[in-house]
Amino acid sequence: MKGKETKIILTEKEMPTSWYNVLPDLPKPLPPLLHPGTGQPTILPPPLFPKGLQDQEFNKERYIEIPEEVQDIYKLWRPTPIIRAYRLEKALDTPAKIFYKYEGVSPAGSHKLNTAVAQAYYGKKDGIKRFATETGAGQWGSALALGCAFFGLELKVYMVKVSYNQKPYRRILMETWGAKCVPSPSKDTEIGRKILAENPDSPGSLGIAISEAIEDAFGREDTYYSIGSVINCVLLHQTVNGLEAKKAMEKADAYPDIIVGCIGGGSNFAGMFLPFVKDKIEGKKPNLRIINVEPAACPSVTKGPYTWDYGDVAGMAPIAKMYTLGHTFIPPGIHAGGLRYHGMAPIICHLHKLGFVEAKAVHQVTTFQAGVQFARTEGIVPAPEPNHAIRVVIDEALACKESGESKTILLALSGHGHFDLAAYDEYLTGKLQDYDYPAEKVKEALTHLPKVEYVEA
Amino acid sequence: MKGKETKIILTEKEMPTSWYNVLPDLPKPLPPLLHPGTGQPTILPPPLFPKGLQDQEFNKERYIEIPEEVQDIYKLWRPTPIIRAYRLEKALDTPAKIFYKYEGVSPAGSHKLNTAVAQAYYGKKDGIKRFATETGAGQWGSALALGCAFFGLELKVYMVKVSYNQKPYRRILMETWGAKCVPSPSKDTEIGRKILAENPDSPGSLGIAISEAIEDAFGREDTYYSIGSVINCVLLHQTVNGLEAKKAMEKADAYPDIIVGCIGGGSNFAGMFLPFVKDKIEGKKPNLRIINVEPAACPSVTKGPYTWDYGDVAGMAPIAKMYTLGHTFIPPGIHAGGLRYHGMAPIICHLHKLGFVEAKAVHQVTTFQAGVQFARTEGIVPAPEPNHAIRVVIDEALACKESGESKTILLALSGHGHFDLAAYDEYLTGKLQDYDYPAEKVKEALTHLPKVEYVEA
Repeated sequence: MKGKETKIILTEKEMPTSWYNVLPDLPKPLPPLLHPGTGQPTILPPPLFPKGLQDQEFNKERYIEIPEEVQDIYKLWRPTPIIRAYRLEKALDTPAKIFYKYEGVSPAGSHKLNTAVAQAYYGKKDGIKRFATETGAGQWGSALALGCAFFGLELKVYMVKVSYNQKPYRRILMETWGAKCVPSPSKDTEIGRKILAENPDSPGSLGIAISEAIEDAFGREDTYYSIGSVINCVLLHQTVNGLEAKKAMEKADAYPDIIVGCIGGGSNFAGMFLPFVKDKIEGKKPNLRIINVEPAACPSVTKGPYTWDYGDVAGMAPIAKMYTLGHTFIPPGIHAGGLRYHGMAPIICHLHKLGFVEAKAVHQVTTFQAGVQFARTEGIVPAPEPNHAIRVVIDEALACKESGESKTILLALSGHGHFDLAAYDEYLTGKLQDYDYPAEKVKEALTHLPKVEYVEA
Repeated sequence: MKGKETKIILTEKEMPTSWYNVLPDLPKPLPPLLHPGTGQPTILPPPLFPKGLQDQEFNKERYIEIPEEVQDIYKLWRPTPIIRAYRLEKALDTPAKIFYKYEGVSPAGSHKLNTAVAQAYYGKKDGIKRFATETGAGQWGSALALGCAFFGLELKVYMVKVSYNQKPYRRILMETWGAKCVPSPSKDTEIGRKILAENPDSPGSLGIAISEAIEDAFGREDTYYSIGSVINCVLLHQTVNGLEAKKAMEKADAYPDIIVGCIGGGSNFAGMFLPFVKDKIEGKKPNLRIINVEPAACPSVTKGPYTWDYGDVAGMAPIAKMYTLGHTFIPPGIHAGGLRYHGMAPIICHLHKLGFVEAKAVHQVTTFQAGVQFARTEGIVPAPEPNHAIRVVIDEALACKESGESKTILLALSGHGHFDLAAYDEYLTGKLQDYDYPAEKVKEALTHLPKVEYVEA
């Protein structure tokens, strides 16, 4: 502050025109996906995904061109700003330099739109008419609703019933962008009807919603299925953010000592750190720390084994090598709905196993304390998910205060919390609670891992 | 699109360092404010407002420096982008060029923060400890909550009780930024207690809430009162937006033929058009059209007489010369709460009377039809207030299609609709209704105008 520049914003002309694909730069190849039926290596199931995504999932090219139509849509809100957190630094009285890259300026309010636009583009290119997808709290469903609106595609969103009833604003947002949204389990699919027949009051689950969306897409030739995180090509689409961040930091003659982000499926943070981890793999930045932050209530990387597991609860999705708490594990009801996933993006798990990135788990209440401090100094009210990362950023900045070091910290601020204020209310009124690590439930869930005979080369 | 630049963004270094004060450029002087007790010319009541604002209200300088501390805070989200609405143009198949200046990127979600930060700064400078203010739907209360958070000031917000109960998210937002928010009428003031004694179930009104906030500020030496629109200095603070827009358009070698914005108290749109109206007053742009858009349910400029009236419902505020529907008029419950004001900023009224700006009134349902078309093409879900302006922008663009003219249209997009989705739900489900012009109620309200003996020179 005091007359200094606060933001680093690239011009549209400086925007990346390619996504960065980390696969060719990995020192050891990424384990394949395995078919849930045969247990043998597979690609993304062909009738379900656009051809463009299948081509990208295990691509060998380092840079993959962003189609011009996708770039044109990105320009509605991209490049997103990097903001120097002068006010937070001052409140913490730290010598650390804190920067945050803010994806909440996207019309859908988070990074999710980066892949939603790309997936809708590739679907349109293949000539399909509609997408089907699932959503929990509604973040992904609303991003894809807007992605489909841009390309004139229909969208049906199966929204977990308990969220459908509790979060009407997210549903209305999807409908405003033209999507059809039904509570899951629904009467519109066989599996939905079956579950409703057994239990008419079923609150639904992400697993059920995925199964309904996949059944919908399998049953219609004009329809693709879409997923908002975890798989390689989704992480690829998110690298537009990290590439911008790297170029912007270069413009400011800065390079991070520490990069921090939250992980649920992993696409937000991988999108940020992959262009930087390249420097670490190449030995140019051996001391760069990349900290993945997950909730203590759902600590897949810090507590789960690195093994083969289904990507979804129902066991219909491919099997991936990842840190997992078991695909049948249902995490406690923390407000950071986007971090309640049993596994983790295989690319992040692989990089963690190889020692290029680290992970931390934090409890819920302390993340909201960090989020409120951020809101009162920097203005932005963050979503509950990035509050996890802000907690660790503040801890690292306070460590700098102790040590007297002036480290440069880069935060991936993935979105705003405008639709999550009920959670802030719970925090401010002292009603928010922490959840212990559910060790017994995880132990039980890990007995249901798939039996895999495939042996890595 | 198609590889073209979509946004015009200034750098921080290109940001205005002064606000533009239209008063010295008016061809005829603005009528004064009159004291509600004496009926004689007055300034802003001294114990209620910061000295900085009193100095600005009838200032003669054309440019007034923006304090560096205020500029530093503006840089958290300013300059805000001008975006070319390529997609909306294509959907309308119009030769018109549509640009929108988007204030929704501010952490509080609208233009209101521009003056909230300035007012908090001047209050802090005078050494006070707290502010008191009223809020209807919560837009102004939340902006001032953040403004006060930036300067470590306390804030008490009297929020109209019916909104307090209906819109908990706006209340939580204020609390997240550290403000105290109570439903009005409250037990915390004499007038509140009096009203509750008479009617314990009173739903409250903006008039009551203003009276409570003023009583609060009058009763304490450490407290100022704050208002979010209407008065000259608030419009002045908002000119940062219009100055940015003018400079950005120059960079793109463009100048608007038509500027469109919505008016409630008038600060959003005046902030945009004042730097442009200067060119019209000076005869440089005689054909520039400046269209003020108001709701048909509360049509002060298009239906009200230009006369002296109180600024507030209770008759405690100064008397201003303006288009008014009568200070006791309670407009129908349209969703654009920010446009439900009986009067209008005196500067806008004066410019309208002098023929430099025009006004249109539009009905509610058609504004949401325009807002949804905007959301599905440009992505952003606008607040109900700017939907009024979008309706007129679309109508003007369609008129261009008829005439074959390629006019340049600039829209003041004052904020997003993230907290207004219940209104979109009503529209999408066909429940939204229009309200006729309430002629009889206005006629009755106009019988309560103050008797003014002051005669203009």
